[in-house]
Amino acid sequence: MRLHKQVSLNLNVRGLGQSATIAINERSKEIRSQGKVVYRLGLGQSPFPVPMLVVEGLKLHAREKDYLPSAGLPALREAVAGFHRRENGIEARPQDVLIGPGSKELMFLLQLVYYGELIVATPCWVSYVPQATILGRRVSLIHTRADGKWRITAELLRRHCEGQEDEYRPRILVLNYPGNPDGGSYSAAELKELAEVARKFHVVLLSDEIYGQLHHQGQHISVARYYPEGTIISSGLSKWCGAGGWRLGTFTFPPELDWLLEAMAAVASETYTSVSAPIQHAAVYAFRGDIRIERYLWHARRILAALGNQCAEMLNAAGVLVPPPVGGFYLFPNFSPFAERLAGRGITDGKTLCERLLADTGVAMLPGVAFDRPAEELTARMAYVDFDGSKALSASETISLDQPLPEDFTELWCNNVIKAVRLIIDWVTQ
Amino acid sequence: MRLHKQVSLNLNVRGLGQSATIAINERSKEIRSQGKVVYRLGLGQSPFPVPMLVVEGLKLHAREKDYLPSAGLPALREAVAGFHRRENGIEARPQDVLIGPGSKELMFLLQLVYYGELIVATPCWVSYVPQATILGRRVSLIHTRADGKWRITAELLRRHCEGQEDEYRPRILVLNYPGNPDGGSYSAAELKELAEVARKFHVVLLSDEIYGQLHHQGQHISVARYYPEGTIISSGLSKWCGAGGWRLGTFTFPPELDWLLEAMAAVASETYTSVSAPIQHAAVYAFRGDIRIERYLWHARRILAALGNQCAEMLNAAGVLVPPPVGGFYLFPNFSPFAERLAGRGITDGKTLCERLLADTGVAMLPGVAFDRPAEELTARMAYVDFDGSKALSASETISLDQPLPEDFTELWCNNVIKAVRLIIDWVTQ
Repeated sequence: MRLHKQVSLNLNVRGLGQSATIAINERSKEIRSQGKVVYRLGLGQSPFPVPMLVVEGLKLHAREKDYLPSAGLPALREAVAGFHRRENGIEARPQDVLIGPGSKELMFLLQLVYYGELIVATPCWVSYVPQATILGRRVSLIHTRADGKWRITAELLRRHCEGQEDEYRPRILVLNYPGNPDGGSYSAAELKELAEVARKFHVVLLSDEIYGQLHHQGQHISVARYYPEGTIISSGLSKWCGAGGWRLGTFTFPPELDWLLEAMAAVASETYTSVSAPIQHAAVYAFRGDIRIERYLWHARRILAALGNQCAEMLNAAGVLVPPPVGGFYLFPNFSPFAERLAGRGITDGKTLCERLLADTGVAMLPGVAFDRPAEELTARMAYVDFDGSKALSASETISLDQPLPEDFTELWCNNVIKAVRLIIDWVTQ
Repeated sequence: MRLHKQVSLNLNVRGLGQSATIAINERSKEIRSQGKVVYRLGLGQSPFPVPMLVVEGLKLHAREKDYLPSAGLPALREAVAGFHRRENGIEARPQDVLIGPGSKELMFLLQLVYYGELIVATPCWVSYVPQATILGRRVSLIHTRADGKWRITAELLRRHCEGQEDEYRPRILVLNYPGNPDGGSYSAAELKELAEVARKFHVVLLSDEIYGQLHHQGQHISVARYYPEGTIISSGLSKWCGAGGWRLGTFTFPPELDWLLEAMAAVASETYTSVSAPIQHAAVYAFRGDIRIERYLWHARRILAALGNQCAEMLNAAGVLVPPPVGGFYLFPNFSPFAERLAGRGITDGKTLCERLLADTGVAMLPGVAFDRPAEELTARMAYVDFDGSKALSASETISLDQPLPEDFTELWCNNVIKAVRLIIDWVTQ
């Protein structure tokens, strides 16, 4: 936002840019429209289509025109509660579920209604901090480390809470796993330890599990199993159901936090009112559980696992540091081993690295600073999603699920991603 | 929201109830589920179905899964700009249009990003003031008068602005016509006068024209014709297109206010991201202009005009004061001639009036206080929408448009509304 005249804007908003992920998408489109090839590893959009069953659900309910209750369509709240009981082994009732137009909007409402501290571990998703800025709030950042696979530990959380010497301070910690921007996750033991510290300091956990169904081995575990009374689970259609553009997110609360759900629903009724009715009706098919959805996920996971691991291996072999992914569709490579060489080319921060890489090779990635890492850190997020997910799924469906994908699968069906990784390696090692 | 324990909530949100219109809808459903008849004149939802053309558009685009630009789908921005050029005779370009999940959400974003005074004329739509409360802002109310048909005049606006002795104070005035809750509107002469005062005091006008297409004679005029440089037009699918539950609203800005659009789009990119993609694609069919949409509107207007006028005549004949409606589907009857009689029954304010009416007769209306009128005023909003709009449209389509509807049309096709008005009259005159 560049202002060329005198205007009356809220200072919290003045100068606010577009969300970094949205901006990279629009910039990539622009370059593409000039006839250049762009490898779109910027925007984190699922490459897979919305499952047919869910698309048919939308067609079936295209006439639904009524305003729905602010907290959500009852049948959908029931389906989402069932989904969490089934997938996460937790108690969840329909009345614990809140439906919103994207989990991003729900996160914003949570920040708006809650009076307390928001704690975020970096690298973190791009919108937590700008949302706090818009609302005039402060966020506490806990920086994780590359050699800790970018995970927050119970110890880091304990140190943060103890350091404040404020035992009853209201706090929410955002935990995101499988992780954006890094594709990592937590073991059951790590989650148990985190839960213990959270319980001790009365920290509410916002457990952002929007990539939960995309754990590459289908072995996602929710921290809510170990800290049910203090965990809000965030999910939605955007990632595992390929429906980012549909805008439907869910928060599932423990009964103890019903007041947060209620306050958020009250604000919803004065802002977006409720989520689009046809979309909510269609989403029931996604959350209700169906063998067609299961099959879709098995194939999607197998493809993402093969591709993510191959990219990580290629990068590591070339000297770029990156942990192999556990879930989702991101890697967070660390180019610091090339710091000296890059500095010689005038590149001393992540933003310049990404800009130069895009200009020189057409590969779009987002710098670590967009995920609240230090500006000078030579990290970037790579979304390995620039391929036709429909074709890849069709190809995978011809190969029995007890077999691994053949060696040439990614080369054949995810060619742009492999090409982009080669371009990154050539560019950084030149 | 009733809080039974210690919680950490933003004070601006604490104790916030649900939007009054949403709450009356849920209360009516509750009573109905007990097997009692409820006449739903509470929630302002269009009785008509979404036009077939638009429903088919949604089915056709059910697979659209991409995140769309925050400001909206380019084809839709173009269609909306064309709609305003065609319907309002103003210059509007695609880049002047912002698409949101309901005009209510856009209004909230406007209040969030703008730094200045919001002026609202009462009776006004239920959400302006709660939105300001949530954001910790103040709203200036200008009370209009029953004998001025609840319209704000240029003189009232001038007096307000002059009284502040602050020539360059940033201000937005919300103008809503055809009006919610009163069904009134403005003549071209009145709009010109308002435009002149607004220009003099640099007041931005938010012209809420969501009922514009439901002007009963199809003769809606936008104030933007007289004050193009300072008018934002608000519209959407909810009212004239019968798609309240779809959640799609539009704001159209003059080039001079591009900074407001830009700031709102930036906040959108950090909150709801963009409006649901299939819904935006479908909305193109609604705004692009089509003879099927025109026909739908001609019939809808003829039905609403006949019904609204009949209700107003019945009420006036019984001694209740209510101006005949000009557009939309609301009346704002004033029961003050019965003040003494009602007081004898223990009814001395609008809220009690509505509660007792609902309990005694099953007729649901919203009290004037929900529209920021004084609590003791004996006014209420009646939404004359409790009928099957699909059947009424089908019936109207068999009658040539150059004919008036036959006398018994409303009795046949809008029977619940007529019955409800009789119940109101019997109840108030008893």
